[in-house]
This record gives sequence, structure tokens and C-alpha cells, in this order.
Amino acid sequence: MSSASRDVRVITWGDASPDEHGDLVAVEAPLEVRVNGEPFAVIMRTPGNDPHLALGFLFSEGVITTRADVAAVDSWPGDDVLGNRVNVVLDGPASAALEKRTRERRHVTMSSACGLCGRVSIESLARDAAPVPVAWRMRAASVAGVPALLRAAQPVFDGTGGLHAAALCSRDGTVATAAEDVGRHNAVDKLVGSMFETGRLPLGDFVLAVSGRASFEIVQKACLAGIPMLVAVSAPSSLAIECAEVCGITLVGFARGERFNVYTHAQRIVDRDR
Amino acid sequence: MSSASRDVRVITWGDASPDEHGDLVAVEAPLEVRVNGEPFAVIMRTPGNDPHLALGFLFSEGVITTRADVAAVDSWPGDDVLGNRVNVVLDGPASAALEKRTRERRHVTMSSACGLCGRVSIESLARDAAPVPVAWRMRAASVAGVPALLRAAQPVFDGTGGLHAAALCSRDGTVATAAEDVGRHNAVDKLVGSMFETGRLPLGDFVLAVSGRASFEIVQKACLAGIPMLVAVSAPSSLAIECAEVCGITLVGFARGERFNVYTHAQRIVDRDR
Repeated sequence: MSSASRDVRVITWGDASPDEHGDLVAVEAPLEVRVNGEPFAVIMRTPGNDPHLALGFLFSEGVITTRADVAAVDSWPGDDVLGNRVNVVLDGPASAALEKRTRERRHVTMSSACGLCGRVSIESLARDAAPVPVAWRMRAASVAGVPALLRAAQPVFDGTGGLHAAALCSRDGTVATAAEDVGRHNAVDKLVGSMFETGRLPLGDFVLAVSGRASFEIVQKACLAGIPMLVAVSAPSSLAIECAEVCGITLVGFARGERFNVYTHAQRIVDRDR
Repeated sequence: MSSASRDVRVITWGDASPDEHGDLVAVEAPLEVRVNGEPFAVIMRTPGNDPHLALGFLFSEGVITTRADVAAVDSWPGDDVLGNRVNVVLDGPASAALEKRTRERRHVTMSSACGLCGRVSIESLARDAAPVPVAWRMRAASVAGVPALLRAAQPVFDGTGGLHAAALCSRDGTVATAAEDVGRHNAVDKLVGSMFETGRLPLGDFVLAVSGRASFEIVQKACLAGIPMLVAVSAPSSLAIECAEVCGITLVGFARGERFNVYTHAQRIVDRDR
């Protein structure tokens, strides 16, 4: 196992009784990119080749254009609260160009919600979030039916094969609202925004279904909206699982056909009505 | 056809001779989110429910927490150069809270590379980018072989099913470098950064292969690095196609088995060695 993946415990529901076993998930963790010691960006990434990631990112951003622009790359890998960090030291002319560009360009407030830090921000997120209903339960058969509800709400995907989708589903198998977008996080924002507009938050009686993977950002959005269960058609990341655990959200992944995996708060999924 | 999808011309290579036909792709376009008239963020999204997207985004960012925080939402949809725009007007207390938060929080320079604007930024991108080799050709059979090269370079995906991958491949079917990451754009940055570090840019003799969809951001990164061909296993967005067209990049999508679709600069793909 490399630092790019991590062991977790998972419960698989399928044809037979629920089966608890070990599994591997991809690691997602924040990397702080500094330029000349100053914070420049925070990237949610899988650890590995962090100096290359920082160089490629700064190249795409136009901060560096040739190898000569870079005087040094310092990296502090680690599991500390501040996450990992890479500092790219520019040579004189590249530093001057960046300073000029920064002066000329308007500044935009960037969210720090996705966190410089793993654990600290997840815990503060859990404090800020709407309370998630603890006693809420859903039948396993209904959970297995969620992907089909989502799939039926993807008209543009049918034509293009090129969009993510998200839906808010109720426990009785109806879709309250659905959205498609090139960005998975956008599709979720559209759902939360539509419920926000009509004053229906928090969303304590809904399941959030997403067509792709479950990243930290998706769990964070579910948490803030008070959604008790997230069902993803594909894999969750390590940070998505940690966040769901702390925030009290039931996280379901690889929901396909009759099978699905439960990563956190599995007690909400029951065999029959209670 | 809704504004979420768009007609394009595509050439499909497969068992028979190359076949040109119409197809639908998902629309990707920038949305500027303003708060009280001031630019707050630019989101690459699929048009539709823009006010909901802005409200959901600002809710997740903690800028608004209840319906009462919002005095008005003004939206200017349109196809103009500045892209679409939504302005969320906050009520008094929410405005004061945002101002306080903005003062307390460090500002980070956000990239405007991905563009407030569609056409203008793509054209300036084409000017800034490394020149792409015009006479470069690749055999169709070699293009069809690229996804298998990429797939063989995904050890962590094999264990987790939860990572994107990218690879730089040569025309003779070898992989120069590959990376996996929870973020598709990160995987590409890692590749470009590794070549940058050893002074090997521009990458005029490589194909960039990506495991997922081709968004504008991926084409932008290929363009800046001078890569003549992008092969994506899944669908391209509308803006990815427009950007590839202007920047001179051959964009291949839905590359699966022997079949693939060519969206731009199809002349680079030939039946036999030239």
C-alpha cells in the first residue's frame, strides 16, 4: 500500500447478508502551495510527486514558464494538522513578474473551507453544520434503488455522456430535485441552492445521490446542508470517509445494481421498516 | 437540445472507415458569481439554474446561512464575451459578516486563466501557449492503443477504483510518465511538472492521455505545455472542444477499445505511417 491509498473497513450489502471486510480507498489530502514562502493555493490531491504537482500547477497558472524561473523547491511532507506543504522559490525576474501581476490583478477571497488542514477543519465543519438526524433509518432495498432514481433524472447525460448528476431523494423512492453539470460539486450546489431559495434547509429527511465519486467537498456540502446520507455511484476518497464519520453522515459508495458499500454510520441502513 | 448541450461534428474511427457525423456534447461555460456587485468567484459550469448554483455555492462557502440573508438575486444570462453572471445581494447583517470575514482572512490570488470570458481568454491562451507542431501525425491504430497504455499505468486505481490518471505517451506506444490523483487536473499537473523540472518542455512529441472527461482546464494545460494531441477515455465538454480548435490541438474522446471520436484537428490522425 502506497501513501496514495489507505485501508478502511466497509460493509457490503448485496445478495447475501451484509458483509464487513477491509478495502482500499484513494487518499485525498490538502497540499498548501507556497510561492516565496507566501500561501498561493490549497489543492486537494492524492499525496505523491508533490513538488511536480506544485511546479505543474504554477506553470499552468503562468507563474513560472521555464526551469530557470525556479531557484528551489522545498517540500514538507507529513501528516500534521497543517497538511503537507510545498514552497517554490522563484528567481529574481520571475518574482518580480509575479509581484507585478498580483498588483494588477483583483484579489478574490478564496474559500478556506476545504481546509489547509485535515482534522481541524473537519471538526470545525461538524460544529458549523446543521445537526444530522441521529435516529433516521432507511431500508437497504431503498438505498439500492437510489442509483436508478438518479439515472432516470439525467436527460442531458443521455445525449452527451458528459455530465455529472446529483439528486435529492426521499426514503420512499421519489426525487425532490435533480441537477446535471460538468462539475459534480456544481450539481450539488444547484440542489442545495434550490432548497435554500424556498427556505427548506436543513435537508434532514433526504438522501443525496451523486453520479461519480464522493470527494471531501461533496461530503462537506452534505454536512452543511444537514443531509444524513450520501450515496455515490463510484468510490469515496479517504477524506470523504473521515469527514462523513466526524459529521455523522452515512456514506455509501459503489452503489450499483443491488450492491453497495457502506463506509460510515452503517446503523442507519436496516433490513426492513422500523 | 437544451442550453446544457450543444451540437458538434465528430469523426468516429472504428472497425470501418472514419465516419463523420453530428453528436451532442455537454456545455461548459464560466459563470461569474458576484456578491453585492463585487466579483467573488468564477465557476466553470453547465448553464442552467444559475441562481440556484450561486446560492448553493455561497451557502457552502458560509457567506449565507438562511434565506433571510439574501435580499435579491440578479442574473444576466447571455452568450457575451464576459460570460454569464449572477449577483447575490445580501441583507445588512450578512453583508457586515462577509466584510468582517474578508478583512480577517488572508487573500489568495486566484487564477483568472480559466477565464471570466470564453472566447477572449481562449485566444489569449493560444497566444501565450507553446507552439504546437502542425505537421505531427499519428497512426489511428496507435491512437486506439493509448487507453490501454494509460490503463496499465494505474496501479492505485486497481486497488481503489477511486483515482483519475494521466499519462504522457509517445507515438511508438511507450509511456514517458504517468500519475494518479483524486483530481484529474492534478494528475496532469504532476506530469507537466515532472517534465518541467527536467527542462523537457514544450512537449511537442507527446500525446496526453486522461482517464476521465476532457474539460476546458485539461485542454488549457495541454495547450500551455505544447502538447499536440489529447486522448480522453470519456466525453469532452463544449469549451474543451472550442479551446482545442483554437489552440491547434487534436482532441480525441470516448477512446474505448478500437473506437474513438475525433473532435478537432483530425488531419493529425492517419491510416498508415507517413
